[in-house]
Amino acid sequence: MDRIEELCSIILKDINNKNLTPEDKSAAANELNCLLAEGSIVIAQSNPHSGDVRGNAIKAYEWIKWAQKLNVDAVIFPELFLVGYPIGDFVDRFPVIVEENIEWLNALALKTNSVKVIIGFIEKNTRKTGKKYYNSVAVLSDGKIEKVIRKSLLPNYAEFNDYRHFEPAETDSSSRIVEFKSGKKAGIVICEDGWNDRDFFEKNLYKNDPVETVIEEQHPDFIINCSASITRAKKEQLKHNMLSFAAKKYTTPIVYVNQTGSGECLSFDGCSRVYNADGELIARAKSYEEQFFVVNPLNGGGAVYPLPAGLEKTLNEQKAFSLDHEPDLERTYLTIKQAIRDYFGKCGFKRAVLGLSGGLDSTVCAVLLADALGAENVLGVSMPSKITSETSKNDARELAHNLGINFTEVTIKDMFETTRIKFDGLFADIEKKWDCRYKESFTNDNIQARSRGMLLWGIANEFGSCLPVATSDKSELYMGYATINGDMSGGYAPIADVCKTKLFALAEWLNKNRPEKNAIPRSVIEKRPGAELAINPETNKPLLAEEALMPYEFLDEVIWRVENLQQSINDMIDETFLYEKKENVSKEQKTRWLKKFFKRMSFSHYKWTIMPPSPIVDARSINKSEYVHPAIASKINYQKTTFEQKLLELKEEPVFQV
Amino acid sequence: MDRIEELCSIILKDINNKNLTPEDKSAAANELNCLLAEGSIVIAQSNPHSGDVRGNAIKAYEWIKWAQKLNVDAVIFPELFLVGYPIGDFVDRFPVIVEENIEWLNALALKTNSVKVIIGFIEKNTRKTGKKYYNSVAVLSDGKIEKVIRKSLLPNYAEFNDYRHFEPAETDSSSRIVEFKSGKKAGIVICEDGWNDRDFFEKNLYKNDPVETVIEEQHPDFIINCSASITRAKKEQLKHNMLSFAAKKYTTPIVYVNQTGSGECLSFDGCSRVYNADGELIARAKSYEEQFFVVNPLNGGGAVYPLPAGLEKTLNEQKAFSLDHEPDLERTYLTIKQAIRDYFGKCGFKRAVLGLSGGLDSTVCAVLLADALGAENVLGVSMPSKITSETSKNDARELAHNLGINFTEVTIKDMFETTRIKFDGLFADIEKKWDCRYKESFTNDNIQARSRGMLLWGIANEFGSCLPVATSDKSELYMGYATINGDMSGGYAPIADVCKTKLFALAEWLNKNRPEKNAIPRSVIEKRPGAELAINPETNKPLLAEEALMPYEFLDEVIWRVENLQQSINDMIDETFLYEKKENVSKEQKTRWLKKFFKRMSFSHYKWTIMPPSPIVDARSINKSEYVHPAIASKINYQKTTFEQKLLELKEEPVFQV
Repeated sequence: MDRIEELCSIILKDINNKNLTPEDKSAAANELNCLLAEGSIVIAQSNPHSGDVRGNAIKAYEWIKWAQKLNVDAVIFPELFLVGYPIGDFVDRFPVIVEENIEWLNALALKTNSVKVIIGFIEKNTRKTGKKYYNSVAVLSDGKIEKVIRKSLLPNYAEFNDYRHFEPAETDSSSRIVEFKSGKKAGIVICEDGWNDRDFFEKNLYKNDPVETVIEEQHPDFIINCSASITRAKKEQLKHNMLSFAAKKYTTPIVYVNQTGSGECLSFDGCSRVYNADGELIARAKSYEEQFFVVNPLNGGGAVYPLPAGLEKTLNEQKAFSLDHEPDLERTYLTIKQAIRDYFGKCGFKRAVLGLSGGLDSTVCAVLLADALGAENVLGVSMPSKITSETSKNDARELAHNLGINFTEVTIKDMFETTRIKFDGLFADIEKKWDCRYKESFTNDNIQARSRGMLLWGIANEFGSCLPVATSDKSELYMGYATINGDMSGGYAPIADVCKTKLFALAEWLNKNRPEKNAIPRSVIEKRPGAELAINPETNKPLLAEEALMPYEFLDEVIWRVENLQQSINDMIDETFLYEKKENVSKEQKTRWLKKFFKRMSFSHYKWTIMPPSPIVDARSINKSEYVHPAIASKINYQKTTFEQKLLELKEEPVFQV
Repeated sequence: MDRIEELCSIILKDINNKNLTPEDKSAAANELNCLLAEGSIVIAQSNPHSGDVRGNAIKAYEWIKWAQKLNVDAVIFPELFLVGYPIGDFVDRFPVIVEENIEWLNALALKTNSVKVIIGFIEKNTRKTGKKYYNSVAVLSDGKIEKVIRKSLLPNYAEFNDYRHFEPAETDSSSRIVEFKSGKKAGIVICEDGWNDRDFFEKNLYKNDPVETVIEEQHPDFIINCSASITRAKKEQLKHNMLSFAAKKYTTPIVYVNQTGSGECLSFDGCSRVYNADGELIARAKSYEEQFFVVNPLNGGGAVYPLPAGLEKTLNEQKAFSLDHEPDLERTYLTIKQAIRDYFGKCGFKRAVLGLSGGLDSTVCAVLLADALGAENVLGVSMPSKITSETSKNDARELAHNLGINFTEVTIKDMFETTRIKFDGLFADIEKKWDCRYKESFTNDNIQARSRGMLLWGIANEFGSCLPVATSDKSELYMGYATINGDMSGGYAPIADVCKTKLFALAEWLNKNRPEKNAIPRSVIEKRPGAELAINPETNKPLLAEEALMPYEFLDEVIWRVENLQQSINDMIDETFLYEKKENVSKEQKTRWLKKFFKRMSFSHYKWTIMPPSPIVDARSINKSEYVHPAIASKINYQKTTFEQKLLELKEEPVFQV
């Protein structure tokens, strides 16, 4: 299929071929037409724009026209393509969007011929009972809407909120069948419909399995799954194993159609694919790119593009915590790069400004921004205070130079002094009213961080389409080790779902794998992290983050255990951490760190509520679009008490609360 | 029942009686015991703390002991009481919380006798299929868990997310029945279970109606509905009419149990109540207060406490936009006051600091904070710039004096100058790199707003348990007329769900109805709103908000139509606004305003993502806990196009996108 792929990349929307003329493309289509076997279909691995129904419809039509020119059996778009995933709650508040998507669907239908168009849209539920809408796929052919298939299993966990707006369909299996002009027939399911195999999963969320039902009752030649399925750590492994398992179990090929592009916090990796009746992967589209992908599920498969490096060799690995982040680094890089590009692009921003401290967080952010937006659209601002070391300043400058981004340096000493002097008088005045002044506070640290925030937002106010970026990382957000209106402040937070140990690995990876090697100065990677906001009186040097918190290797494993294993303090005390295998850690020290973690986390939730959007990267995260922790839930006991302790607390005598 | 109520308020947790001794309380209980008729039950209208299972259990036990002393039939707690509503997603990530709630339930059960305890908790789903948990109510008696009733209808819209964590129960109706020692039997439903009457609602979300089923199959003497139901504009009217309708329809009394207190963005108004078999209200607990409320659904009812003023007389009114906000002002005041108190209290904050500009927003916030936290815990800071008028400064000072809150004044001129000078050089430098400098920008306006934010957060860093408050209002948030890290910045945003016209009415109401009359200076209410951040070149006076936006009366009606009627631009052009009845508005002007509204809103979504938590007040809101609008959805067309226009846009010739 290699030549086929090459021709496809010529005829439609390949960023490397944007200079080709319509004539070139037409010639490619003609040649391609001769090569195609009976039963070929096109997977339209496209990047929709949430809410931009018109834009999505016009884009779909372009792909449809090329599919018609090739006279394939069908062209298949992802789930909810016309409205664009994610939909948030706007379809509820603005029904005009749904009306528009139905009109555009009808308009597209008028343009169809015998090449069937299979496309996700929102259907109205006209019955008296149930949610307003269905999450549906329409089959368009010969100028009409031939049939509509509705999603039955509606995920409603983590980043998924389908059940908020959609009624689960009680579809009878015959309605899922579409027959193509080659005589082949396919059974159509929608995303989660394909994720409930009772033999593959230990627990099932739903009672019925639409894949099983349609295969057993209708015997389709293959299954088509129209999806919008995001990338997360270990998800490719799960998805591959599950789809392969189901294809083999039913000896029925599966065509899995995914979108690409990012929507706010969600990133889609594309990687649409076909498994044959033996469960073998016989075609796979590119990762993180739009692709007009021709496959033939019953006759030859298609091209197999590589996964991001590292995923392939870990396809069968179990989940376990590891400090070897290598297998997930390219995926992480591609995910965040795409997320930045689409957040800025889809919101209408073009330029990013960020503070360059010479530290790891802002350094990695700068590289990602340069790669996502183009170096010319990034401005790094070095904003030293009197604590900032020469090394840090030099590192910032060198990084900017290496990346080719715009750079400027401006001291914040004067802003700090002006504010500091002001505070002296102000605090003395307030102290007369409130007797709760801290002996030691973070006020000075935060003036510095906030002065920087002030400068960055000022630049964004003054220059067009420019958005400041927040550089907080995941390890520090868990610990509340981030300044509101300071490093936490920005319109987007690229690395908020990347832990510190992984950031170090990512920095090394970037130096090795970007076309321009070693853009990140060695000293950035080698120095131990610290905010350079305060001096540690014990060392008389800038306070290091690990001195204020705990070793990052330990911290990151706590976070991993919370997110992936849902462990309590008791659970974690009973298990051995990787850090404990390397270093001598007493049980008391471990317990202190664990308690410190949960205490700091409990007091950080109010900070999480005001974090800007950020891309989900890990298997689980604290991203607001998947995890909500009310800040008021500050008294959770993360350490189980015994039943006897509880009985003792229920005292017999009435106790009066005030 | 008046004497009964008085005695109840003596025996348990009445804030006005906190100085009573245990002996006084015991005497009251003895007297009360003599007065109670057979079949009396206690509604435990209590305020749980999300996640604080231990605290909730100990509190429950105290109420249980008093109910036992009175030897009533039962004491009934709200939905999910043991874990505390709302649960966010923490029960998914921290299963230790659910384990703890089950152990505490067992511990409480051991302490029960023939007085039945009906209490909401989270039950584990041990089957292979379905969500992890059930939203359940346990009936505890004689030292055991007698039975468990599971919620069937799981709301998953607006602020509700039940289906994320709970499996809907297929409860057979007999399991809903509990029999009391008086011989009476009740059918138990949980919150949404009671909100699906096919005759009351035009559309139904669910197929089955647990109230209908349990009454028709089991013929209980009355229904108990354990709820956690938030207050919103027009919801009391809906709730009252629905419960009254159902009681009458089935000639079966309904006991409706609600919680009080606030959880993050959600506020519960209490107002537990009983309807008799004729659908008449025969008992109603206090609003916004915890109450140990004795009722007798079949024999005498109970006390009927008043609703917030205005709600009673509008109980049967239909929804329509009105600039007469009066009927909703006391409810608005009580909701926000409670929300502030509980957000601060439950997060662990005690003091609030806010900027006092002399304008309406900060003024109303200051009054609400003073009433919620105590004047001594509030610090108002006047931070004039060179644009700030003498009137504004005087108004801020006078307000603080009237409220008795702490007050200080500190100019930001020096901070502004330092930053402004810095920017001159910085921008000149950046201009060499980027040719996108605005001719006119909001930079100067925002330096002022952000300098103020810097001061407020500095105070919070320096003084214990202190949180800055964001003063943005709903009208301005819709228009993006708010400064990031400025007036939008804070840990909590008390009035983010109150429109400007309602804020004016609320200010008048506060002046009339607080014990200290006229705390708000007249000139605050009389002057037209403006941020005093910039001079209008046309008038040479500080720019007024309505000059920058549109008349608030018009704007607020647009917002109301979007939220309550889900109208598009086309819908609104066709209807007559209240403002149009008063003023001469051309169709062109109206269209311009509408387009401006949607354009500004589309570009404000990224600001919404970083707003701090705020209390829901209106029937619908942009509060993050009920409405998510991805910032990337910036290209929604809020104005429908014709089908013909669409067909024209689908051009026959292939068009290549870049």
